[in-house]
Amino acid sequence: MRRFPAHPFQPLQDGDKLKEECGIFGVVGVTDAASFVALGLHALQHRGQEAGGIVTHHPEHGFNSARRFGYVRDNFTRPDVIATLPGSIGIGHVRYSTAGSKGATAIRDVQPFFGEFSMGGAAIAHNGNLTNAAALRRELIERGSIFQSSSDSECIIHLMARSIQKTISERIKDALRRVEGAFSVIAMTRTKLIGVRDALGVRPLVLGRVGDSGWALASETCALDIIGADFVREIDPGEMVIIEGNKVESSRPFGAAKSRFCIFEQVYFSRPDSQYGGRSVYETRRQIGVELAREAPVEADIVCPVPDSGTPAAIGFSQESGIPFALGITRNQYVGRTFIEPTEQIRNMGVRLKLNVNRALIKGKRVILVDDSVVRGTTSRKIKDMVLEAGAAEVHFRIASPPTAWPCFYGVDTPERSKLLAATMTEDEMRDWIGVDSLKFISLDGLYRAAGEAAGRDPAAPKFCDACFSGDYPVVPSDKIEEGFQMKAAE
Amino acid sequence: MRRFPAHPFQPLQDGDKLKEECGIFGVVGVTDAASFVALGLHALQHRGQEAGGIVTHHPEHGFNSARRFGYVRDNFTRPDVIATLPGSIGIGHVRYSTAGSKGATAIRDVQPFFGEFSMGGAAIAHNGNLTNAAALRRELIERGSIFQSSSDSECIIHLMARSIQKTISERIKDALRRVEGAFSVIAMTRTKLIGVRDALGVRPLVLGRVGDSGWALASETCALDIIGADFVREIDPGEMVIIEGNKVESSRPFGAAKSRFCIFEQVYFSRPDSQYGGRSVYETRRQIGVELAREAPVEADIVCPVPDSGTPAAIGFSQESGIPFALGITRNQYVGRTFIEPTEQIRNMGVRLKLNVNRALIKGKRVILVDDSVVRGTTSRKIKDMVLEAGAAEVHFRIASPPTAWPCFYGVDTPERSKLLAATMTEDEMRDWIGVDSLKFISLDGLYRAAGEAAGRDPAAPKFCDACFSGDYPVVPSDKIEEGFQMKAAE
Amino acid sequence: MRRFPAHPFQPLQDGDKLKEECGIFGVVGVTDAASFVALGLHALQHRGQEAGGIVTHHPEHGFNSARRFGYVRDNFTRPDVIATLPGSIGIGHVRYSTAGSKGATAIRDVQPFFGEFSMGGAAIAHNGNLTNAAALRRELIERGSIFQSSSDSECIIHLMARSIQKTISERIKDALRRVEGAFSVIAMTRTKLIGVRDALGVRPLVLGRVGDSGWALASETCALDIIGADFVREIDPGEMVIIEGNKVESSRPFGAAKSRFCIFEQVYFSRPDSQYGGRSVYETRRQIGVELAREAPVEADIVCPVPDSGTPAAIGFSQESGIPFALGITRNQYVGRTFIEPTEQIRNMGVRLKLNVNRALIKGKRVILVDDSVVRGTTSRKIKDMVLEAGAAEVHFRIASPPTAWPCFYGVDTPERSKLLAATMTEDEMRDWIGVDSLKFISLDGLYRAAGEAAGRDPAAPKFCDACFSGDYPVVPSDKIEEGFQMKAAE
Amino acid sequence: MRRFPAHPFQPLQDGDKLKEECGIFGVVGVTDAASFVALGLHALQHRGQEAGGIVTHHPEHGFNSARRFGYVRDNFTRPDVIATLPGSIGIGHVRYSTAGSKGATAIRDVQPFFGEFSMGGAAIAHNGNLTNAAALRRELIERGSIFQSSSDSECIIHLMARSIQKTISERIKDALRRVEGAFSVIAMTRTKLIGVRDALGVRPLVLGRVGDSGWALASETCALDIIGADFVREIDPGEMVIIEGNKVESSRPFGAAKSRFCIFEQVYFSRPDSQYGGRSVYETRRQIGVELAREAPVEADIVCPVPDSGTPAAIGFSQESGIPFALGITRNQYVGRTFIEPTEQIRNMGVRLKLNVNRALIKGKRVILVDDSVVRGTTSRKIKDMVLEAGAAEVHFRIASPPTAWPCFYGVDTPERSKLLAATMTEDEMRDWIGVDSLKFISLDGLYRAAGEAAGRDPAAPKFCDACFSGDYPVVPSDKIEEGFQMKAAE
Repeated sequence: MRRFPAHPFQPLQDGDKLKEECGIFGVVGVTDAASFVALGLHALQHRGQEAGGIVTHHPEHGFNSARRFGYVRDNFTRPDVIATLPGSIGIGHVRYSTAGSKGATAIRDVQPFFGEFSMGGAAIAHNGNLTNAAALRRELIERGSIFQSSSDSECIIHLMARSIQKTISERIKDALRRVEGAFSVIAMTRTKLIGVRDALGVRPLVLGRVGDSGWALASETCALDIIGADFVREIDPGEMVIIEGNKVESSRPFGAAKSRFCIFEQVYFSRPDSQYGGRSVYETRRQIGVELAREAPVEADIVCPVPDSGTPAAIGFSQESGIPFALGITRNQYVGRTFIEPTEQIRNMGVRLKLNVNRALIKGKRVILVDDSVVRGTTSRKIKDMVLEAGAAEVHFRIASPPTAWPCFYGVDTPERSKLLAATMTEDEMRDWIGVDSLKFISLDGLYRAAGEAAGRDPAAPKFCDACFSGDYPVVPSDKIEEGFQMKAAE
Repeated sequence: MRRFPAHPFQPLQDGDKLKEECGIFGVVGVTDAASFVALGLHALQHRGQEAGGIVTHHPEHGFNSARRFGYVRDNFTRPDVIATLPGSIGIGHVRYSTAGSKGATAIRDVQPFFGEFSMGGAAIAHNGNLTNAAALRRELIERGSIFQSSSDSECIIHLMARSIQKTISERIKDALRRVEGAFSVIAMTRTKLIGVRDALGVRPLVLGRVGDSGWALASETCALDIIGADFVREIDPGEMVIIEGNKVESSRPFGAAKSRFCIFEQVYFSRPDSQYGGRSVYETRRQIGVELAREAPVEADIVCPVPDSGTPAAIGFSQESGIPFALGITRNQYVGRTFIEPTEQIRNMGVRLKLNVNRALIKGKRVILVDDSVVRGTTSRKIKDMVLEAGAAEVHFRIASPPTAWPCFYGVDTPERSKLLAATMTEDEMRDWIGVDSLKFISLDGLYRAAGEAAGRDPAAPKFCDACFSGDYPVVPSDKIEEGFQMKAAE
Repeated sequence: MRRFPAHPFQPLQDGDKLKEECGIFGVVGVTDAASFVALGLHALQHRGQEAGGIVTHHPEHGFNSARRFGYVRDNFTRPDVIATLPGSIGIGHVRYSTAGSKGATAIRDVQPFFGEFSMGGAAIAHNGNLTNAAALRRELIERGSIFQSSSDSECIIHLMARSIQKTISERIKDALRRVEGAFSVIAMTRTKLIGVRDALGVRPLVLGRVGDSGWALASETCALDIIGADFVREIDPGEMVIIEGNKVESSRPFGAAKSRFCIFEQVYFSRPDSQYGGRSVYETRRQIGVELAREAPVEADIVCPVPDSGTPAAIGFSQESGIPFALGITRNQYVGRTFIEPTEQIRNMGVRLKLNVNRALIKGKRVILVDDSVVRGTTSRKIKDMVLEAGAAEVHFRIASPPTAWPCFYGVDTPERSKLLAATMTEDEMRDWIGVDSLKFISLDGLYRAAGEAAGRDPAAPKFCDACFSGDYPVVPSDKIEEGFQMKAAE
Repeated sequence: MRRFPAHPFQPLQDGDKLKEECGIFGVVGVTDAASFVALGLHALQHRGQEAGGIVTHHPEHGFNSARRFGYVRDNFTRPDVIATLPGSIGIGHVRYSTAGSKGATAIRDVQPFFGEFSMGGAAIAHNGNLTNAAALRRELIERGSIFQSSSDSECIIHLMARSIQKTISERIKDALRRVEGAFSVIAMTRTKLIGVRDALGVRPLVLGRVGDSGWALASETCALDIIGADFVREIDPGEMVIIEGNKVESSRPFGAAKSRFCIFEQVYFSRPDSQYGGRSVYETRRQIGVELAREAPVEADIVCPVPDSGTPAAIGFSQESGIPFALGITRNQYVGRTFIEPTEQIRNMGVRLKLNVNRALIKGKRVILVDDSVVRGTTSRKIKDMVLEAGAAEVHFRIASPPTAWPCFYGVDTPERSKLLAATMTEDEMRDWIGVDSLKFISLDGLYRAAGEAAGRDPAAPKFCDACFSGDYPVVPSDKIEEGFQMKAAE
C-alpha cells in the first residue's frame, strides 16, 4: 500500500550481486534478551542491511517490538531502544527488500510479524521465500484477512490466526504445511522459542547453547560466536524444535526429504567464519580457489581478489598455482556493500567510490582477478577498466562459482533471467563482452568437490540446491510459473 | 503490543480538560487531494494534537499513506510528504490517544486504517467511540483476524473484511450495523468518498462543495472554510452519503432515531467559528455567558476569561452584567494546549509556563474569572493562586457548563468518575476546595437555552447528549459495564 | 559567509508586521541558572522566534553554551540540553534574523556571543541595533579581528577584546562608548551579571529579585513573572548595573540624556502583561482604543479585533463607543505569528491558514476591525476580502498606531521606506487601496495621551522614540546614510 | 568553551591504535568543486572519521561552508548539501578530535577555518600539529583576537588576520613563519588554491591534475585516484604552491631542510593504495612482513593478519616464510574502526563485536598473528584470548613496527608516554603481559630497509620522523615541554 520515494541513504541496487533476503536470530533464557538479539543480528547484518526488527516478551510488560531502517549497530545498540524491549525471550530479523516489492521497503514490511491469538501472542521471523504466497494471499484476503505488509511472509501469521489448533506450536505446523518454498523460521510465544526448517533445508538454521540456562537459534554460527554461545548442531531439514526452559523438543512435521542446502550460501552469502558440516565457509571458499587453479590455470604475475568476497578463493588459487597473492584492489572501508551516490557527478564516479586499484603495484603486471560470481557483468567490466587504466599488462578473470544462469525463487534477490549475463552468452562471449584476456568459471563438479563432495555433483541426487547454476529447481515455483516463468526443459 | 517510553514532546495530560479524540476530513474531485486534507486537518487540529494520518488514491500509483506524530503543520505541509500522497481523493485523521491505550499512542494506532479486500482497497477514519469494541475484538480474534493496533476503530475494518457483501459501501453498512456507540466515519475507496453518522448523531459531520467538481466531508465547518469550500449541510444522524463524481447518494441504513448531538461540542470542543444549526459556536458560547450573568450575578470590577476557551462566555457575561471585560490573564502564544515541561525545575513552574496574570491590571480589583468547565479542579486552584498573588481583592469563578459529574464513553477522553471533582463534591464544597469567594456553574436548563432551546432541557426527550452532566447515557456503554461501571440509578 | 536554502519551517516573512529583533535575559545566584534562562526566554519568545542561545558558567565546568533554531520550548526545556549548561549564572537571547542578513540566520549569528580574554571569558546578549556597525566592522577587520557572524552585535565583543582595560566591566564600557545606536545589553563574566542600556533607553531592560539571593535582568517584566521573580525597577537610560553576589552596583558611563523609549514597544512589541512606568502595556493599548473611538467614531454593529495584537485596543474602542465587542475572526492556535506554507497549493491559501472569519456571526453586519498597525497593507487587504466574502455589510478599519512612514534603525526589522504604504499614500489613498469603507489611524498626540502623556507629544522634547511615525530619529543612522538613506528634511 | 556529553554514536577510544588527526583536500578549476571535495574526503576518511567540513567560493554566491559530524558519505554526498556549496574552487577537511580537547569536538572546531580580511576572505585546512600553539594563542588573545574554537589550527588564521601583507598568499607565509611543528596546509582565496608543507615535510601533501583545466591538492594519492585525477608529484618539504588558472607557482618560503616524512604514515596511517616515492604503501608494508620473517622466524601452521591493517605484512611474512596465509580472524564489515557499544551487556562483548575467530580453521593450529603496532596492548590481549579460546595450539605475535615508546606531537593522537606499553616494559615483559608464546617487533633498521633505505637508519641523518619509536624529535615540542614533558636524554 505504501509507496515511498527512494530513500536517499539506500545503497544503489546495481543488480550485480545476488542478495540474501534475511538473517534471523532468537534467544531464550537469558537476562536482557534484546541485547543478545541485537548482537546476533549485528553478526548477521551481511544477510540484510536495509532494516531490522526485534520482538521480546516480558511477563509484566507483555510483547514489545521495535523496527528500524538501517544498520543494527545504529538502531538496536542504543540503551533507549533496548530499554523498550524488556524480557528474557526475543527474536529478530534483518532484511533486504523482498523480490516482490518495487522500490523500498515500508516499515510495515519489516519482520518479525506479530499476531495476537485467542491463546496469546506470537511473533515470527522468516528467512526464505514462499513459492505459493500469491495464491495464499488471494485466498486469505477473500476469507477476510487484512494484510498489513507487502511481505509474503505475512501469510504465515494469517494462516496461524485461522488455524483451529489450540496451541501456537500446532498452529505454526498447520500454517507451514500450507506453504511451499524454502524457509527457515524462528518464532516465539510468551515462553517458547521455536525453530523450523523446510523439508529440503534450503536456508540454514543452527542451534546454540547460551551459558547454562539459555538457548539460541540463528541463521549462521557466527551469530552464536558473537554472544559467546556454543554451537550445538544444525537444525535438520524438515525439523521443528520447540525450546522451553531447559528442554529442546524436536519433531519432523513435514515428512522426510533429502537435504538440498543452498550452495550459494557456501559461495557468497554466509560469512566465512560460519561453519556448515564441520567445516568453515572460508575453507570451502579457499578450496574453490584451489579447484579453480587446477581447472583453469594461467600464467601471470599476481593473483588479486575482487574485494572482499573473492579473497578466500584468491588465496586458494595463489596457494595452488604458486603465483603470489596481492591486494591489488583496495576497498574503501567507509562504504557498505554499495554506496550512496546521490549527485549526478558523484554517481558518475561509479565503482571508484568503493574500489581503488593500487596503481604502483599493478602497473605492468599480468593480473589474475578472482571474484565470487558474475551476475550482470557490469561491475566486472568496470573493474577490468580500472585495472587496465592502472597499467596492467593482462587481466584474467577467475570466477569462484559456475555461470549464474537461472533466477533464485527461494529467498535470494536475483534479476530476472534475461538480465543474467550467463543466460544469454557463452563463456567466450562473456569474456569478450567484459573485455578481458581470459575468463573462466569453476565447473559445477569442481564446486561440489570444493564443498566436500569428492565425486562431484550426482545429477540423480544432488546434495545442494544449485538451481541458480543448473536450472534444477527442487520446489516448483508455482507463483512464478503463473506469472509466466519457463522452467528448463527436461533433458 | 508496543510500549513506548513517554514521548518528551507530548503535552502533559493533567486531566483538567476533557479531550476530544479525533477530527476527520475527506475530499474528492480535486487536484492534489493531500494538500486539501492537510489543510482540513490543520483546521481541525484542536480535536487531536498527538498524531495525524492521510491516505490518498491515485489511479496509477494506487493507495498511499503517511502517518506522523505531531502537528499537521509540521508534517503534512512539507512538499516531500505531500509528494508521496498523489491523487484526487483522500481522507485524513487527527487524534489524541484513545482512552484505552495506557501511555502514548503507537504509530500503528494512527488512522486512517486501510484494508485490501478482494474488490479493492478501502481506508476509514473514525471519530467517536465504540461501546462494544472489546467484545467485537475478542470475537474477531477468535475467528482469525489479526489486529495491528490497540485502537477500537480497527474493528470496523475487520468487520468489513469479513462481510460477504460485494461492494465496499455495503461492507461499511454491514460493519457499522455490528458496532454500538457514537461515531462519525469518513471512508474512501478508489473512487468513492463515504460519510456516515451514527443514529443519534453524537459526533458532528458536515458536507461541503469544493469548486464545481469537488466535495468535502469534515468534522466541523471551519475545515470547509480553510479550503474555500461552501458549507452545504450537516450529515443527518443515521445518514450515509456516498459521493462519486458529481453525485451525492444518501441513505439511512441504521433506522431512524432522534438526534442527540454532543452538547460539549458546543461548550468546548468545536472551534468557535464552526457552526451548527445555522448558528456559530461562538454565539452559543457568548449566550452561555449571558445566561450565566443572569443566573449567577455578582458585584465585581472586571470580568476576565480563563484563556482561551472561556473568552466568548466572558464577553457575554460582561455584556449582560455591564462589568468591564478585560484580558487579565495572558496566555503564552508559544505553548500548545499544554506544555512540555521536562526538567524538574521547569515542571514546578506549572501553569506559569502557559499563563501569566497581568499584575498591574489585576491589583486591588474584584475579579470574575469565566472558564468553560471544571474537570478535576486542579488548574482552577492554580489560577486562583496566581490571581490572588497578583493582588486581586476578590476572585469569583463562573463556569460556562454544568458540573462535569460523569465520564463520556462516546469519544472524549475523560478521567474515571472518581476523579471528577463534581462527582464527589457539592458546588459549595468545590468553591471551598478551589478557594474562591464564589463559584457558580450554569444550570443544564440555562445551557440548553443558550444552545437555542428556549424551553430548556426536556427530560423526556433531550435534544443533546449531555451524559457528562446528567449521567443520562443514550447508548448503553456495554464494554464499560462489563468492566464494572455503574450507571446512574433510574429516578 | 554561510548561505542556507530557506528553512522550510521558517515563518514566511510577508513584511506586513514589524519585527522585534531580540529578547534578552540573564540571571545570577540561583541553582540551575539555565532552567531560569530558558523560562525567561520562553516568556520573551514574542521578541524573536527564529533562534535562541544560552551561555552559563560553572566554577568546575567553565563556560558552556547551546544555540538552536526554533522555539525555546522545543530546544531548551529538554533535560539533555539543560544538563550541558551547568552553573548558577547564565544569560540568553532569542532573535529574529537581523535586518542585514539576506535570507536566514546561520547558527553562528545566534547570540550570546562569547569571547575568551586574557582575564577570563565573557558573554554578551544584545537587543537593539548599532547604527555605526558597518564602519566599526571595517575598522576591526583592518586591524586583524576575525568576525564569525554576520551580526553587527559581534562588534561589541571585538571592541572588548581590543580594550586595554583590566576588567571585563571596564572593557564593556570601553566598547559601548564606541558604538552608536540603540541597545540594551546583558553580559556575564564568571561571577558578574551586567546590564547596560543606551543613553536614550530606546530598548527596555528591567531588574528583578529572585528569592533572597538571586537577581535577574530581562527585556520585559513578563519574564520576571514566569520565574516568580519580583520586579524591582527598570534600568535607567544610560545606566550600567554590575551584579555580583548580593550587590547591585550602578553607574552612568555614557553621560546623561533624556529618555526616548520606543513607543512601538507600547503599541505592539511588548507583551500586554508587561509593564512600563507602573502601567501594564495592556492598559495602554486599551486606552489607545478609547482615544481612537473618540478621534474616529463610526456607526457599526460590532467591533472585532484583528487577532491577537489588536484585541486590547478593540476592547477599549468597544467600551468607549458602546458598540459590542466580538471575536469575529478566529486565529488558528496551531500557527506561529506566521505559517509554514511550503506546497504551492497550500501557500495559495494565504491568510486562511492562520485566520478564519466567523461567517455566521459576521454576515450582514457593519464591522469595525481594529488592528495594531499597517506596514505594507497586504494583510489588511486579505482580511478585508475574507470579511466581505463572509457577508459583512460594511468594513471599517481602525488602526491603533499612526501611519508607519519611516523605517526603524534601532533594532526592529522594517521594510525599506518605499515599501511602507504610509510613505507613499495619504490616509484616503490607503483606504481606497485596501478597499474598505473607512480607515482611520490614531494621531501621534492621541497615542502619546494613551501612553500617559496627557498633553500629547511635545515636539521640542518628545518622551518617546517615534521615528517610525515621525521620521524624527534621535540617533543619526550613519551606516544607513552612507548607504543612501535620506533623513526627513528639517521643517 | 562548549562541553558536550559523550556522543553515543562516537567510536569508543580505547587508545589502542594511534589516530591520525586529519585529511585535507582542495580542488580548483572544475565544475561543482564541492562534489570533488566530497569524493576526495571520502577517500581520506581513514585519516579522520569524527567530522568533516567543506568551503567553496562562487563569484556570485561568495564563500559558503558546511560542517558536519560523521562520515563524508552520510553528509556531503547529499544533493541538498552540495547545492549549498556552489563554485569551481573548494577545500575540505576530515578530522579526529584534537589531542587537546577533552571529550568530543564541538562543531566550531571543525575545519576549514574561514576569515574575512580587508582584501577578501580565505579558508584554510590544516593537517598536523603546531608545537608552539599554546604560546601563540596566549599572545593573540592578549592582543585582542577572539578564538572561536579549541583548535590550535585557528592560530594560523588569526596570524593571517594580523599580518600587514597585502595579499593572502603573503599573509599565509607570514603566519606559517610564526608557527612551529608539523603541518601540511591547503588554503583558498576566491581564485587561488594554495598548498604548503612544513620544512621537514612530516605530513604528506600531493598535487594532481584534473582533466585539462583543474588541479587538486590532497593528503594522499588515493584521493586523486577517486576523482580520476593524475598524480603529478609530491609537494616538497618547505614548499608552497599557489595555483591560479592553469599556473602552479612554487616557492620555498621557509628555508631548506632535510625531509623527515612520518614513517608511521608508511606503517599504518596512509591507505595501502597511496604511494610515496614511487612505491605503494602496500608494497612497503608487505616488505615489512618479509623483513619481519627474516628477523623473527618461528615454526607455525598458519599466518593470520589482525584485520585489516596487519594484512599486507602478514602476506609478506607468509611469502618469505612459506607458512600459509589464512584469514583466521574475520572483521565484521558493519563496524567502523571501533564500535558503538552503549548498553552494558553489549559493551562487555568487547572486541567480539568487531572481530570473530574462524573456529573451524584455527582449532589445533600454531598461529602467527601479524599486527601493525602495539600501543597499550589491551586489544592484543583480547585477540590472544579469542584465538586461544577457539582452540589454537600456539599463538605468536609479530608486529610490523618497532615498539611505540614515545608520544607523537606532530598531528597524531597518542596516549601520554606512561600509557604506552613499550615505554614501561621490555619486549619479553610485553610478551608475558599479553600472554603469548612469542612476541617480536621489527627493528628500526628493518623498518627503514622495508621503506627503501637499504642501509637501514642513519642515526646522524635519519630519512624519516620516527620519534614515536626513537624519541628523536626533529622539532622541539615547546608547548609540551612547558607542560612538563621530558625529552629523551642525549646519549
